[in-house]
Amino acid sequence: MLPPLTAIPSHVASVSDYRELARERVEPGAWAYLEGGAADEISAAQNLTSFDSCRIIPRHFRDFSNAHTRTELFGRRYAHPIFVAPTAYHRLFHPEGELASLLGATALEAGFTLSTLASASLEEIGAQKTAGLWFQLYIQHDREFTLELVGRAEKAGYEALVLTADAPLSGLRNREQRAGFQMPAHISAVNLKGMRPQAPAQQIFGSELLKQSPTWNDLAWLAENTRLPIILKGVLHPDDARSALDHGASGIIVSNHGGRILDTTPTPFEVLPVIAKAVAGAAPVLVDGGIRRGSDIFKALCSGADAVMIGRPILHGLAAAGAVGVAHVIKMLRTELEMTMALAGCPDLSSVNPGFLLEKR
Amino acid sequence: MLPPLTAIPSHVASVSDYRELARERVEPGAWAYLEGGAADEISAAQNLTSFDSCRIIPRHFRDFSNAHTRTELFGRRYAHPIFVAPTAYHRLFHPEGELASLLGATALEAGFTLSTLASASLEEIGAQKTAGLWFQLYIQHDREFTLELVGRAEKAGYEALVLTADAPLSGLRNREQRAGFQMPAHISAVNLKGMRPQAPAQQIFGSELLKQSPTWNDLAWLAENTRLPIILKGVLHPDDARSALDHGASGIIVSNHGGRILDTTPTPFEVLPVIAKAVAGAAPVLVDGGIRRGSDIFKALCSGADAVMIGRPILHGLAAAGAVGVAHVIKMLRTELEMTMALAGCPDLSSVNPGFLLEKR
Amino acid sequence: MLPPLTAIPSHVASVSDYRELARERVEPGAWAYLEGGAADEISAAQNLTSFDSCRIIPRHFRDFSNAHTRTELFGRRYAHPIFVAPTAYHRLFHPEGELASLLGATALEAGFTLSTLASASLEEIGAQKTAGLWFQLYIQHDREFTLELVGRAEKAGYEALVLTADAPLSGLRNREQRAGFQMPAHISAVNLKGMRPQAPAQQIFGSELLKQSPTWNDLAWLAENTRLPIILKGVLHPDDARSALDHGASGIIVSNHGGRILDTTPTPFEVLPVIAKAVAGAAPVLVDGGIRRGSDIFKALCSGADAVMIGRPILHGLAAAGAVGVAHVIKMLRTELEMTMALAGCPDLSSVNPGFLLEKR
Amino acid sequence: MLPPLTAIPSHVASVSDYRELARERVEPGAWAYLEGGAADEISAAQNLTSFDSCRIIPRHFRDFSNAHTRTELFGRRYAHPIFVAPTAYHRLFHPEGELASLLGATALEAGFTLSTLASASLEEIGAQKTAGLWFQLYIQHDREFTLELVGRAEKAGYEALVLTADAPLSGLRNREQRAGFQMPAHISAVNLKGMRPQAPAQQIFGSELLKQSPTWNDLAWLAENTRLPIILKGVLHPDDARSALDHGASGIIVSNHGGRILDTTPTPFEVLPVIAKAVAGAAPVLVDGGIRRGSDIFKALCSGADAVMIGRPILHGLAAAGAVGVAHVIKMLRTELEMTMALAGCPDLSSVNPGFLLEKR
Repeated sequence: MLPPLTAIPSHVASVSDYRELARERVEPGAWAYLEGGAADEISAAQNLTSFDSCRIIPRHFRDFSNAHTRTELFGRRYAHPIFVAPTAYHRLFHPEGELASLLGATALEAGFTLSTLASASLEEIGAQKTAGLWFQLYIQHDREFTLELVGRAEKAGYEALVLTADAPLSGLRNREQRAGFQMPAHISAVNLKGMRPQAPAQQIFGSELLKQSPTWNDLAWLAENTRLPIILKGVLHPDDARSALDHGASGIIVSNHGGRILDTTPTPFEVLPVIAKAVAGAAPVLVDGGIRRGSDIFKALCSGADAVMIGRPILHGLAAAGAVGVAHVIKMLRTELEMTMALAGCPDLSSVNPGFLLEKR
Repeated sequence: MLPPLTAIPSHVASVSDYRELARERVEPGAWAYLEGGAADEISAAQNLTSFDSCRIIPRHFRDFSNAHTRTELFGRRYAHPIFVAPTAYHRLFHPEGELASLLGATALEAGFTLSTLASASLEEIGAQKTAGLWFQLYIQHDREFTLELVGRAEKAGYEALVLTADAPLSGLRNREQRAGFQMPAHISAVNLKGMRPQAPAQQIFGSELLKQSPTWNDLAWLAENTRLPIILKGVLHPDDARSALDHGASGIIVSNHGGRILDTTPTPFEVLPVIAKAVAGAAPVLVDGGIRRGSDIFKALCSGADAVMIGRPILHGLAAAGAVGVAHVIKMLRTELEMTMALAGCPDLSSVNPGFLLEKR
Repeated sequence: MLPPLTAIPSHVASVSDYRELARERVEPGAWAYLEGGAADEISAAQNLTSFDSCRIIPRHFRDFSNAHTRTELFGRRYAHPIFVAPTAYHRLFHPEGELASLLGATALEAGFTLSTLASASLEEIGAQKTAGLWFQLYIQHDREFTLELVGRAEKAGYEALVLTADAPLSGLRNREQRAGFQMPAHISAVNLKGMRPQAPAQQIFGSELLKQSPTWNDLAWLAENTRLPIILKGVLHPDDARSALDHGASGIIVSNHGGRILDTTPTPFEVLPVIAKAVAGAAPVLVDGGIRRGSDIFKALCSGADAVMIGRPILHGLAAAGAVGVAHVIKMLRTELEMTMALAGCPDLSSVNPGFLLEKR
Repeated sequence: MLPPLTAIPSHVASVSDYRELARERVEPGAWAYLEGGAADEISAAQNLTSFDSCRIIPRHFRDFSNAHTRTELFGRRYAHPIFVAPTAYHRLFHPEGELASLLGATALEAGFTLSTLASASLEEIGAQKTAGLWFQLYIQHDREFTLELVGRAEKAGYEALVLTADAPLSGLRNREQRAGFQMPAHISAVNLKGMRPQAPAQQIFGSELLKQSPTWNDLAWLAENTRLPIILKGVLHPDDARSALDHGASGIIVSNHGGRILDTTPTPFEVLPVIAKAVAGAAPVLVDGGIRRGSDIFKALCSGADAVMIGRPILHGLAAAGAVGVAHVIKMLRTELEMTMALAGCPDLSSVNPGFLLEKR
């Protein structure tokens, strides 16, 4: 494994260039964990290609004298709509782990969501930044512990809870299994220390894990037990989006978990328009999955997203060059978003709309 | 040729991993026989890919406290809807032949259909298992012998007849011909011993073979001459499904014979919805062809199938590791089906429906 | 170059197997001439693949006691609907040239069309066979010579004229040019000996060649000057089919000249249904282009063709093994057609119809 | 790098053959500049393939005694509708630069547009040819300098201004960056000498560059300040076409700048019909992007274009063989256009129409 870079090579021209730089610096098992998707990885691959068949029809000669990318979400103003998605165990990819990722994100004014499965404590991260910091949560089989976690997040200054709905069990990670990946001893989900252990099971159906998986009532229960807004992550059906709002959620993240949980789902970008239509402005809608270009972000915004989340590319930047790599990844996306808006004829987010897009015939 | 495995390698993560293990253990001519499809093998290949363009839209936060995969077919309760399809000459792939396959299937509670072209006697197989055992049948040119076979199957405890409709003559097996495959001397269709031989023919049209091929009246005749339910296999047109029920069949198997008989047919999964609609619950509908994942099974069930049949993967498991390989193949499919149902939001078979599927745009 | 085969290798299982056998026996320049299409060869390639996306939905348990493939065209009964298409210069591919091709076709009871650009005299060919023999014709710039040719064909016993409409000039044969193909000195269009030479031209538009290219009036003129039925070859638009019949043609061949003249036309199979509908039974409709399987023939018949023509595969058979190769190619197509009809549930040509086909979704 | 050719090799059969000849003669950085598109080069690639899925349905037996390709644009008669598109810095590809390109174009009677970013002075070029010579223009941040340029073009005999609308900023040229391309010291945009320099900027939005980018009012202003017709280049939306005419433009060029500015736009050929319909004959419509065959030109004309522009192939011809290469490229396109029209049944441009085209099913 090569050591992290200390300077960005001049040939790095796009986010995808960081993938190869990362691959040379990540242990093969961890690379399988990072890159792998569920089963045959069809959804993981389609996430990447689903933006390509959507075309941008540029409009010309518009006024850009007051151009900006500012937006407001849950009462806070953001310089741009690019957020860091929650991803687990950053120390697998760089010794400084989540701290480095946060540093890079903050430098570029990007919102940041810490994973429940972070390899850094939520308090340590909360101490670095309180503005625009969210905490990702699973409703654990141990409901009491779940409430404790929420309390800690509130206390540490997190401003929203990102509740993951699409992973009542781990995905079928064939690539990890084939690579023989095992979590190194020095890395763990430190924030879950003290949680009651799960009963082991031979089969899925009938297991305690599944019997204790959350239902809509648990969402309502959680909403009653926190003062933070809850953003439900993993929504792919418009009825689930409506149900989320009915049960206390304040926002929606359209996501298929990077194609890591259930294979052959629709891509988030594919179902985004119908979900945005179902939400109808009642709450912010975010989307993640396969965004590698500023033009992808623009297409997501035109399709009804209020903001986007970036997952694997952040970890590619982190693995390649630590905080600087993360910052550069976000910087390139931000610049490309501005270029796309300038070339498409969109001076601000309020002027994006589906009319800029042409579905491929 | 390598010998059969005595333990499952740790990298085996999915059914498709057994294909390579099998290939290393099967003589090339027999491999051509197993893997080959008719003519240019377009249908054989499309069977495998036809599930991919169908997307599962997962629903979240549903109640799984009573989740199960039980189903009932022809008066018998099955633990899950995964059946072993009839395939010929298992001794080509493992010295223990059909006995090993049956042992693996029984261990995983899977229904099993013995082929008329089995390399083990139907009585020997019937003696091992009577619950959930079916017998596959062609209406032979020798009608008397056909009735004898049926009588033997009834006596041996088989619970249903799977009548194959789609192969009045062998498919155009170009791959076998190019590989020069010849059946080894020690393997034969033992259950057909004593049947009147077929007159040899120079041409298809005008041959005795074709003149004596069965018609719908023969199905009615067979139904009158057995107390077993007849499941017609090979149906691809809704009118044939209706005709089957009108002439005495009690079930339908949507199938293109693994793409081995006529090339460029529709895939079974492709025509399943329209056939299920034609049958309209009047009889069980099964489907085979190209199922390699639990998610494929889920998609088939959502599209109107009551159960599915697995063909080549059983033989891959058999060739790789005998009964253990067969059991592992079924185990992986069963686990994946439960995972898919859990992640899609389906706690039992009665809750599957077409609303979980999205045709790719 | 290898010499022609004297026996058919046992691995030859389909028409396409003859292509490689031929390639080893044909000089590279002549191979470029044979295999090449116009420009980027998009149409030549699509001809081959256009049948694949069309699926056959088989029907079962039908009566085949009187199955046959007989048909009648222009007053003559044919054993099957497979005809040899007109192709030029057979001596480029085998020393016995058109005589060998004719011998192979006759052995398999296939109709045969001699090209105007044959390397054998029409009288010599006519002397070998008069039943089911047609003559392909261009309306040459030298109209008198054209009439002479027609008179010779009538006298030699040809039963129909196949008038090629789609080649007022040669196609853009980039492959031939790149290969540096030149016609060998000992091969020529012997039937055109004595024709007034064409004035050379620097440019297409304004050239004598183009100014003298035939119009619909020339078709009417030809029809008045021959007692033979005229079959117009190269039709791709329904209005041209109607116009052909209005101006004296008695039949239509849907064709894009094997993709050799104008690139990126529709494939013949693609436009066949709309042309068959336009003709509406008023005259026989034939089709050529890309037929390599009996199932392709069945699909063409279901789509409205009364018969099909085979071009390059005949030359592949000829180059590989002379008359025997040609006969084997036709034999395989004929057997495959019967198998397809048997497996699809079609005992004769009168029972084929579009209901057996499913356009790929 | 090989030197330019002094004779055309006999294997050169089509425009695309010049690409490889050019590649061997252009420095790798300049090659990246020439061949590269924006970002992932999806649009650059699709420009090339977008013509393939459009099929030409040929019509036969039409009268070609008066066939020609003449057309009239902005009051001038042209022998054919093939124009040289504006492209920058021809001296990167051949020491004689734009002068050689112009010489080749003039020999073939093709209209020629000089780029603002030419490596030859507009006066020098204007002195060589005044008939059918156009000048390409950006509305520069320095509006006074822009007017000066226009005045110089008028004085030098240019007959139209091609105003580029789609590039208020440079595209995301990842390929150039990765190749480390830098403009050689001896090549520059000589016509921009004396322009007020642009203030450097760290970010796109808020930069002076973007604040001073032109609006529709600037088009109107330009139209009032020149006696030349203005042809707006880069239009992909019908509303922009209408707006252009409303603000003083006299013609439209449907273009995505060769896929060099914004990636994943529609291809020009794709949106041409809807733009031609919006313009409705009120002004000439030209199109560029991906044209490599005379059949592509024919398809563009059938889709509503009055003429076409050729970009990269001109530079391929220039790099390969100077003026002779440029002339040969145009000659091949012209010959292929005539062949296509002859084979499709179109004796002149007034007879082209959408009825000759079939969208691929």
